[in-house]
Amino acid sequence: MSFTVTILGCASAKPTIDRHPSGQVVNIHEQHYLVDAGEGTQQQLIRFGINPLKIREVFLSHLHGDHCFGIFPLLSTLGLYGRRTPLRIHAPAPFGELLAVHLKYFDTALPYPVEWVETDTTKHRLLLENRTIEVWSIPLRHRVPCAGFLFREKEPPLNVDKFKIAKYGLSIAEITAAKRGEAVVREDGETIPNAELTYRPYAPRSYAYLSDTNFSARAATLCRGVDLLYHEATYAAAEQRSARDRGHATTLDAARAALKAEAKRLVIGHYSSRYKSVEPLVAEARSLFAESYPAREGEIFTIEKQR
Amino acid sequence: MSFTVTILGCASAKPTIDRHPSGQVVNIHEQHYLVDAGEGTQQQLIRFGINPLKIREVFLSHLHGDHCFGIFPLLSTLGLYGRRTPLRIHAPAPFGELLAVHLKYFDTALPYPVEWVETDTTKHRLLLENRTIEVWSIPLRHRVPCAGFLFREKEPPLNVDKFKIAKYGLSIAEITAAKRGEAVVREDGETIPNAELTYRPYAPRSYAYLSDTNFSARAATLCRGVDLLYHEATYAAAEQRSARDRGHATTLDAARAALKAEAKRLVIGHYSSRYKSVEPLVAEARSLFAESYPAREGEIFTIEKQR
Repeated sequence: MSFTVTILGCASAKPTIDRHPSGQVVNIHEQHYLVDAGEGTQQQLIRFGINPLKIREVFLSHLHGDHCFGIFPLLSTLGLYGRRTPLRIHAPAPFGELLAVHLKYFDTALPYPVEWVETDTTKHRLLLENRTIEVWSIPLRHRVPCAGFLFREKEPPLNVDKFKIAKYGLSIAEITAAKRGEAVVREDGETIPNAELTYRPYAPRSYAYLSDTNFSARAATLCRGVDLLYHEATYAAAEQRSARDRGHATTLDAARAALKAEAKRLVIGHYSSRYKSVEPLVAEARSLFAESYPAREGEIFTIEKQR
Repeated sequence: MSFTVTILGCASAKPTIDRHPSGQVVNIHEQHYLVDAGEGTQQQLIRFGINPLKIREVFLSHLHGDHCFGIFPLLSTLGLYGRRTPLRIHAPAPFGELLAVHLKYFDTALPYPVEWVETDTTKHRLLLENRTIEVWSIPLRHRVPCAGFLFREKEPPLNVDKFKIAKYGLSIAEITAAKRGEAVVREDGETIPNAELTYRPYAPRSYAYLSDTNFSARAATLCRGVDLLYHEATYAAAEQRSARDRGHATTLDAARAALKAEAKRLVIGHYSSRYKSVEPLVAEARSLFAESYPAREGEIFTIEKQR
């Protein structure tokens, strides 16, 4: 029952030798979701051992090139690989127009359907729901319409305690009823409360991706209790002015967001190319929020199950 | 007086871990020209120590994604770097429409002018001329309109032989006249033929880029005598059928083109992802054309001056 985040890239707009622009794969129970796709995303997927065909759905935060240039080559390659499964792309307007142009000029005959679902970046909305997860949009504060994403694992199915099965001699039907959350009514009329028989194997886990954005108390509040928070930290604390003007965040902004969100862990990224080393940036974030970590290409952050 | 070709990428359409799609920088007398721009080109430029701002002009052979997806991120980055010099892009139609869309959605305020010059891929035309070089289009045979490029150094200025200057006691004016290719008429009426005084310091050099294409006798003939010929060899000789159907070439097609063009050296590239090693491909090309070499990312081919 995996819940991992693989960093494909965490540079900001100016390219550097060893940093690719934004892109991540969120893997929940072997469902793979692509979050942002800067240039080179498809190659980063291959480099880090993720079969691009496994991507189920795509979430693009905003339409700056360093977050979406890589989606178009990826669409072509998925066609070359013979994908048949539909691909849905969540993105703000006017992504649909960009997609239409791409399909018109490059991929008139893709073997799989591509669908754009418009994100209203001003609202907190449910974008995707299935048996395992929910994905919500998180309005952000950037120079262009931008929404982050909150991935929330659903409550896992209840487990029936083995010892209680033995103790009460539960039948298959009774076990099934207990798994459904019901109390068990025995043949002799006795009722066993569900809580006596079952337990939640682990607490649902969650991950939030907040990039690109100024500090936003609203966004942080909407991610309350998140296990892992990725927050852009384009600038060091000394560049508060630049951050504010450019719709970005500093290390301390990211840490404040993590505090506000009562996150368990913070990952910072989207570093400006001016910083050759990320260690000082992480140190700044840690001065406010101890559990701060730097995103690095290829790194996999795992959210472990907690009982 | 440099004449080099740096390989930024030589993969074909399907991406691989260690091969980037097509892109090259042709450097003639420190004038840098970008030829094709697959995804990741801008990062490859930086990786191989070429300042993207030095790119003077761009030549795109055709509008398949693996040859042009990388131009759009590069345009944005040049803007971020504060480029002011105009950038001209030679490409077949309808590149202008793609460029217009890109500028509309991503780079409404580029600090430098970008101009598209349409290539008529059916004709052998002069695309660019300055004091140093000429660049010609070479019609190719592919699935979509496609033209290769022939870079031709102009005749270098004549050198006046130092010993003749001394022998004849030439004046500054007479030296200048000789450099202009004129005979020198002396005060006493004697005429010294130009050939007695001058020499061509080196033969003009040339480079041809032929990708993507079937074997084309016409293209090869138009590149006659070329010093260095880059010819796609997507397929091994056994895949002649696939090559023909897909508008590509085999190793032997590339070698035949080199023979027909009377090239001095052949470089093959645009390898299909199915070939893990290029050695067997080079061996096949060498079986017909001895001076065959494999393109590899980061490799620089130098055309030395020959007297």
